[in-house]
Amino acid sequence: MELELVSHLCSRFPDHPQMKLGPGDDAAILELAGSRPEIVVSTDLLTEGVDFLLARMNPRKIGRKALAANLSDLAAMAAKPLACVISVALPKRPVFPNLSDLPADEIFLRKGRKAHGNSLPELMELLCEGFLDAVSEIPIAIAGGDTNSWDGPLVLSVTVLGEVAGKPLCRHEAKPGDAILVTGPLGGSILRHQFECMPRTAEMLRLNEVFHLHSGMDISDGLTLDLSRLCHRSRCGAELFLDEIPISDDARELSELKPEKSKIYDWIPAGFASGSPLDHALGDGEDFEVLFTTEWEESEKILQNTLGIPVWRIGRITEAEGIYGLQENGTRQLLPIRGFEHS
Amino acid sequence: MELELVSHLCSRFPDHPQMKLGPGDDAAILELAGSRPEIVVSTDLLTEGVDFLLARMNPRKIGRKALAANLSDLAAMAAKPLACVISVALPKRPVFPNLSDLPADEIFLRKGRKAHGNSLPELMELLCEGFLDAVSEIPIAIAGGDTNSWDGPLVLSVTVLGEVAGKPLCRHEAKPGDAILVTGPLGGSILRHQFECMPRTAEMLRLNEVFHLHSGMDISDGLTLDLSRLCHRSRCGAELFLDEIPISDDARELSELKPEKSKIYDWIPAGFASGSPLDHALGDGEDFEVLFTTEWEESEKILQNTLGIPVWRIGRITEAEGIYGLQENGTRQLLPIRGFEHS
Repeated sequence: MELELVSHLCSRFPDHPQMKLGPGDDAAILELAGSRPEIVVSTDLLTEGVDFLLARMNPRKIGRKALAANLSDLAAMAAKPLACVISVALPKRPVFPNLSDLPADEIFLRKGRKAHGNSLPELMELLCEGFLDAVSEIPIAIAGGDTNSWDGPLVLSVTVLGEVAGKPLCRHEAKPGDAILVTGPLGGSILRHQFECMPRTAEMLRLNEVFHLHSGMDISDGLTLDLSRLCHRSRCGAELFLDEIPISDDARELSELKPEKSKIYDWIPAGFASGSPLDHALGDGEDFEVLFTTEWEESEKILQNTLGIPVWRIGRITEAEGIYGLQENGTRQLLPIRGFEHS
Repeated sequence: MELELVSHLCSRFPDHPQMKLGPGDDAAILELAGSRPEIVVSTDLLTEGVDFLLARMNPRKIGRKALAANLSDLAAMAAKPLACVISVALPKRPVFPNLSDLPADEIFLRKGRKAHGNSLPELMELLCEGFLDAVSEIPIAIAGGDTNSWDGPLVLSVTVLGEVAGKPLCRHEAKPGDAILVTGPLGGSILRHQFECMPRTAEMLRLNEVFHLHSGMDISDGLTLDLSRLCHRSRCGAELFLDEIPISDDARELSELKPEKSKIYDWIPAGFASGSPLDHALGDGEDFEVLFTTEWEESEKILQNTLGIPVWRIGRITEAEGIYGLQENGTRQLLPIRGFEHS
């Protein structure tokens, strides 16, 4: 849905005395009657055909990802996961491949693997396996949900709650001069990482405990697009050090891939795989790494890496608006804002 | 989805130290790190064709109901509404009637009213009007959500958070000898009340503050079915005083209605309208009145009605299992458990 319409509609929702931060960040912040800590809440809706292809993906990986993507929103705020609720609308006649011969770690299914209608309990069981996979990696209470079957496609809705002990990392608190850091290599997530992402929960809780961080968000729609949103909320701009951006192996692989010739990735649009590895790092979505900012001096301490948490310093917040790319040779150019715009 | 499968799957979810009450009640109860109050969380998924008919209902009423039904779950626990998140999957080509000539309070649309594809922003705007209707009646922060458009039908997912100041009302704490009370007349909600229900938030907060209540739940699937669930969780049974059950005007109207001859209610299955007004009060769902139990002596005080809150005493909790119906003439019979079983 166009973001403008959604923010227009949100602006009509009345303020509430206990809502410290409303819609528009990775999560909203709520204050409870006369007590700390605050709680944060975030939600995601995943629909078949838009967020996943049931006929070509392992449902267990879909279940895991539904929860992991939400946990990434909590990590971006440096919030400790508390509980989640998961609702599922199950198609009465699901069609997905026979999974008995599928290696447990295989995400995408080869074209031509025999598809047939599996039972609804089997689909639900596989999704639950995925929820349990996520919960075993990042402990969070599964506090409930709602399950219906219907004639439509598969829908998953996940809401997560977290607690903030210290200062939550919001999008509106980046300051000019801040260093921009990121928790992992970027790009090419469509090959596997989008379904295998590991929320940076422990990393961000620890970093926010030891260092004084200013702002944060997770990279779900693409580095330049998400950074431009953070800058918009903080009324600033940014320079990215193009030679310092960590590029994932998948970004390199994707830039050489011919999806239409692949037996597995034939569903990736041919145009999507064009572009250099750097293009993919700048514009692909669903990396689920956390982008955060802090004073330049503080970033020096973080880069000494006494905590053993890998981070990359990829840019600097500027007073002037716009996202610019800097190269070692001194070139400076306005970057196109690319990423996944939700329809 | 069969309840057995869901509880089988839920039993595999690990315990969590901060989850005081897990899935299976109207809401789960979560304890925050070292602080009162506890928070409760509940969620509902509404799908087109199952929970509403987009082509025959006012979308504004659908939006209002999505939120109101969840607020009713909080009311059943005597929890104060804090915040909600609302996700919507919008059909790219919604088909619903032209609403410009529709009175704002009309819920159901006459067959033959010209249906045509309206714009997606128009549908979203009407749903939001409905959310705002609910929020203006029962204040709660709208803390976020997720909006996608897709090729499937309309889906709404609502999660509500509440705070519990005193003792939350759970399903497992009814005691033999308890009086069973209900906050309003029952039955026939399909005619209008299911989309016009007013959550008993203020009533239950006040009753739970002044009196010592034992257990509670809201009537969403039918009196006998919901009461049997409460009894199951409390390991007890119940006797209903059949002559004391408040029967709604809609239950009376429905029992005389011939839906197939109605210009508005022709979508109601003919069999659904058969049965006496009492049958409808015992077995229809979506009344969204709260059922609660308390010691018999305490119920005497409540019935003196010093708070001005209408309540009816409709039965008594028994040690022996089963739901029995008592009549003034002394007849006692096992009641069939009827209500809406989620598929």
